Amino acid sequence: MGKKVLEIAEFLKAAVIGDKDVVIRDIKGIDEAGEGDLTFIANPRYRKKIESTRASAILVSPDIKKSAKTLIVVDDPYASLAKLLAWFYPPREEAAEGISSLAFIEKEAFIAEDAVIYPFVSVGRKARIESGAVLHPGVAVGREAVIGEQSVLYPNVTVYPRCLIGKRVILHAGVVVGSDGFGYANPGRENLKVPQVGIVQIDDDVEVGANTTIDRGTLGKTWIKRGVKIDNHVQIAHNVVIGENSIIVSMVGISGSTKLGRSVVLGGQAGLVGHITLGDGVMVAARSGVAKDVPSGQIVSGAPAVPHGEWLRIQAIISKLPEMRSTMLSLSKKIEELEERRKAKG
Amino acid sequence: MGKKVLEIAEFLKAAVIGDKDVVIRDIKGIDEAGEGDLTFIANPRYRKKIESTRASAILVSPDIKKSAKTLIVVDDPYASLAKLLAWFYPPREEAAEGISSLAFIEKEAFIAEDAVIYPFVSVGRKARIESGAVLHPGVAVGREAVIGEQSVLYPNVTVYPRCLIGKRVILHAGVVVGSDGFGYANPGRENLKVPQVGIVQIDDDVEVGANTTIDRGTLGKTWIKRGVKIDNHVQIAHNVVIGENSIIVSMVGISGSTKLGRSVVLGGQAGLVGHITLGDGVMVAARSGVAKDVPSGQIVSGAPAVPHGEWLRIQAIISKLPEMRSTMLSLSKKIEELEERRKAKG
Amino acid sequence: MGKKVLEIAEFLKAAVIGDKDVVIRDIKGIDEAGEGDLTFIANPRYRKKIESTRASAILVSPDIKKSAKTLIVVDDPYASLAKLLAWFYPPREEAAEGISSLAFIEKEAFIAEDAVIYPFVSVGRKARIESGAVLHPGVAVGREAVIGEQSVLYPNVTVYPRCLIGKRVILHAGVVVGSDGFGYANPGRENLKVPQVGIVQIDDDVEVGANTTIDRGTLGKTWIKRGVKIDNHVQIAHNVVIGENSIIVSMVGISGSTKLGRSVVLGGQAGLVGHITLGDGVMVAARSGVAKDVPSGQIVSGAPAVPHGEWLRIQAIISKLPEMRSTMLSLSKKIEELEERRKAKG
Repeated sequence: MGKKVLEIAEFLKAAVIGDKDVVIRDIKGIDEAGEGDLTFIANPRYRKKIESTRASAILVSPDIKKSAKTLIVVDDPYASLAKLLAWFYPPREEAAEGISSLAFIEKEAFIAEDAVIYPFVSVGRKARIESGAVLHPGVAVGREAVIGEQSVLYPNVTVYPRCLIGKRVILHAGVVVGSDGFGYANPGRENLKVPQVGIVQIDDDVEVGANTTIDRGTLGKTWIKRGVKIDNHVQIAHNVVIGENSIIVSMVGISGSTKLGRSVVLGGQAGLVGHITLGDGVMVAARSGVAKDVPSGQIVSGAPAVPHGEWLRIQAIISKLPEMRSTMLSLSKKIEELEERRKAKG
Repeated sequence: MGKKVLEIAEFLKAAVIGDKDVVIRDIKGIDEAGEGDLTFIANPRYRKKIESTRASAILVSPDIKKSAKTLIVVDDPYASLAKLLAWFYPPREEAAEGISSLAFIEKEAFIAEDAVIYPFVSVGRKARIESGAVLHPGVAVGREAVIGEQSVLYPNVTVYPRCLIGKRVILHAGVVVGSDGFGYANPGRENLKVPQVGIVQIDDDVEVGANTTIDRGTLGKTWIKRGVKIDNHVQIAHNVVIGENSIIVSMVGISGSTKLGRSVVLGGQAGLVGHITLGDGVMVAARSGVAKDVPSGQIVSGAPAVPHGEWLRIQAIISKLPEMRSTMLSLSKKIEELEERRKAKG
Repeated sequence: MGKKVLEIAEFLKAAVIGDKDVVIRDIKGIDEAGEGDLTFIANPRYRKKIESTRASAILVSPDIKKSAKTLIVVDDPYASLAKLLAWFYPPREEAAEGISSLAFIEKEAFIAEDAVIYPFVSVGRKARIESGAVLHPGVAVGREAVIGEQSVLYPNVTVYPRCLIGKRVILHAGVVVGSDGFGYANPGRENLKVPQVGIVQIDDDVEVGANTTIDRGTLGKTWIKRGVKIDNHVQIAHNVVIGENSIIVSMVGISGSTKLGRSVVLGGQAGLVGHITLGDGVMVAARSGVAKDVPSGQIVSGAPAVPHGEWLRIQAIISKLPEMRSTMLSLSKKIEELEERRKAKG
């Protein structure tokens, strides 16, 4: 199944520089692409490979103006790649149809007629699995939980009782939604468990990466709003709120009751203390430790996190500390000499 | 089902300031609470909301002496909240009863009569599931392992062979107990696997958060003592020992053979190297990296971790490094001038 | 079943100092060992216990030349321990035989005759489970995936469609192989999902720790080469390549498209940004944050990571910052005095 460059350009509303009739059979990375493949340059780091790739055509941004290769020119090559991949690789149908006889559905649970329930799935009493939802093997949905339309739960996902999952949500393998938050009175001494009686609510179009955990609220809810994308191995504590379209990269930890605005971006392995607020559009650099509120639009780095510019200044000096120390020692010496001369002079 | 403030106060042995006859129907967070709800102030950060909340009554500590709202005054509002939630929200009965016919029990395994075994649970040969234990769907218990009385294993928990789980232990979804420790001879070259033939022993009243992993000992055991509470995504390596009532916050990593005393508190994302000892009551700040022994009662911060006071002093200076550097440059200049004048004078 | 020290020494081609006829019944840690046990000293930290251990014999390196105990002297006690444990603790047979009738095998899947498939395993269409492979309860293998000869997948492992697992690979409980990489166009705004159509390829003799996640390539593959050992809770993003025999310690995160050479060692909780290359034999200290390429053989530390020697110098100064600051303040004062005297003199 080949497509001509011209066809692809029309699909993307893109300009072509070079041969419009080249037939494209597949899309590949710049190092792996060969005859008949389309590749792409989304990261400037790979521009130097533009002439050495063996791809037949390259998806590029407008600042690349010529090449011996055929170029398909778009404003955002990565967004265009997303569209092309969805076109070249339509999702396959599910093998299983309907409700497997090897699934365990408790009484009073509702399963939509066109939902797909694989073997070894369990669905608790009064839970609802809405139209078009797909529950892969080993998924456990607790009582009174809801899985919205067209949502996909990959193998071995656990959704605890009463949690609410919206429409078109994707939960990757091993995700846990609704485990108890970490709350004990008199920690270290009595460790009296505070019952966690709230829920998790995940709104529409959220995707959650493999083995990520989202704890239920102590009271009320932990709330992941519409369009949020969460990577693998993220920890979201009780009563956290994450605003629309935020991006949480892998291995981030967010402590209890912290609130994020819309379109917040948290870099990998960052950590946030509890009970703080990050405004809309805040960006937190990878591995930062955020210990207080961050106003909208600010970029912060470091642990403890400070505005990014400040962090850069401090970081530049830290790398020069050995030099700074030897300057200081030489200053000490000079002053000593000046003082001695002064004394000698009386 | 409402309860009068008076009833609640009697249950908690608390004083009341205000209307003892207000009827409380639910317990909610300070922002969500409304007419008929009780809320609480456990963190001073929320005191400013005491007048704006729409709750009918507030659980407070004795330093809050008056309000237009009805106050229930207790020494430790968070501990009282724990008791109240257990009273308002009694645990529900399990739906499943007995041993599901969809579970897989190997021969010679022992299952107590009143244990609850959900579908898709597997229990290995000679394993023991004691009285009142609950194994949720997808739990796998290896051979000769023991799950103690009243313990609850949430969905998709794995307990490897021969591991010993005490009484009233809670293992949240996705927890792995008893996976092989990470031991290879000639690492990076031969990577010869050192068989991990020890076990994990978890004592009574321990709770372990979702997707946490606890490796079995190389020899002997990895040992989580009574009353320890572990959050989500924690990694506990082979032959670690964690003392009674310790608190391990999310995403902590503890390397092999490290020993913790009683009532140790490890903040989120902290990391401990192997073969060290932390004394009783040690506190490690979030994100710290601990590379050597810490004596009992000490608080440490930073990476590498140092006593907390020292860390504060260093941290204060780091934030002033740009200023310090410009002071130093101006000192250099002044000295240069002094030296030139001296030279000019001969 | 005891073995004489002489027998053990012959098995290890080792020298004996002391009584060759002592009978050894088990191998234990130095604190737990007693009469009839062999223990070992692989870490110099434990040498001081050589006389106090109650073990009957000790496996030691040649620099330990005498003791009241019987010594078995080998070049590498840890490697010898590995061999001895494999000898003393031969792997037990699997209880289950063949393909459980409680497993779910889709049509056109191939299962080798001597593979072991436990209950509640699901194997997708056209997947291949090769000879001697063992799939524990709750394992889900997607369509067209391959599990190579003698590989062991512990409970609740998920392998997504089309991923390729080599021979003698061990995947511990909760591992996820082949989940979607984290790729969205217009992050924070549109969050347009980039379909992840590549695979994961894991070569022979790889071991992966509990709850580790390895994402599939966006295009092409994420590739874990022969002999690599990965600890628990590691995150490996799309299109990462890890060279032969590398060692990845717990809680490391490796971002997209980063390439590691052979025999790289990454310490615990380290993080690597995307699109960088680490040469053969690179060592990254625990908790480091690596933001750029590292040439072969280099050891780096810190966040951002720098060559280890440089890090040590900087770290030494950071711990002396309070002292450095007070030196600077005293210099300032002296200069002020010098200047005033100069002025006074005219």
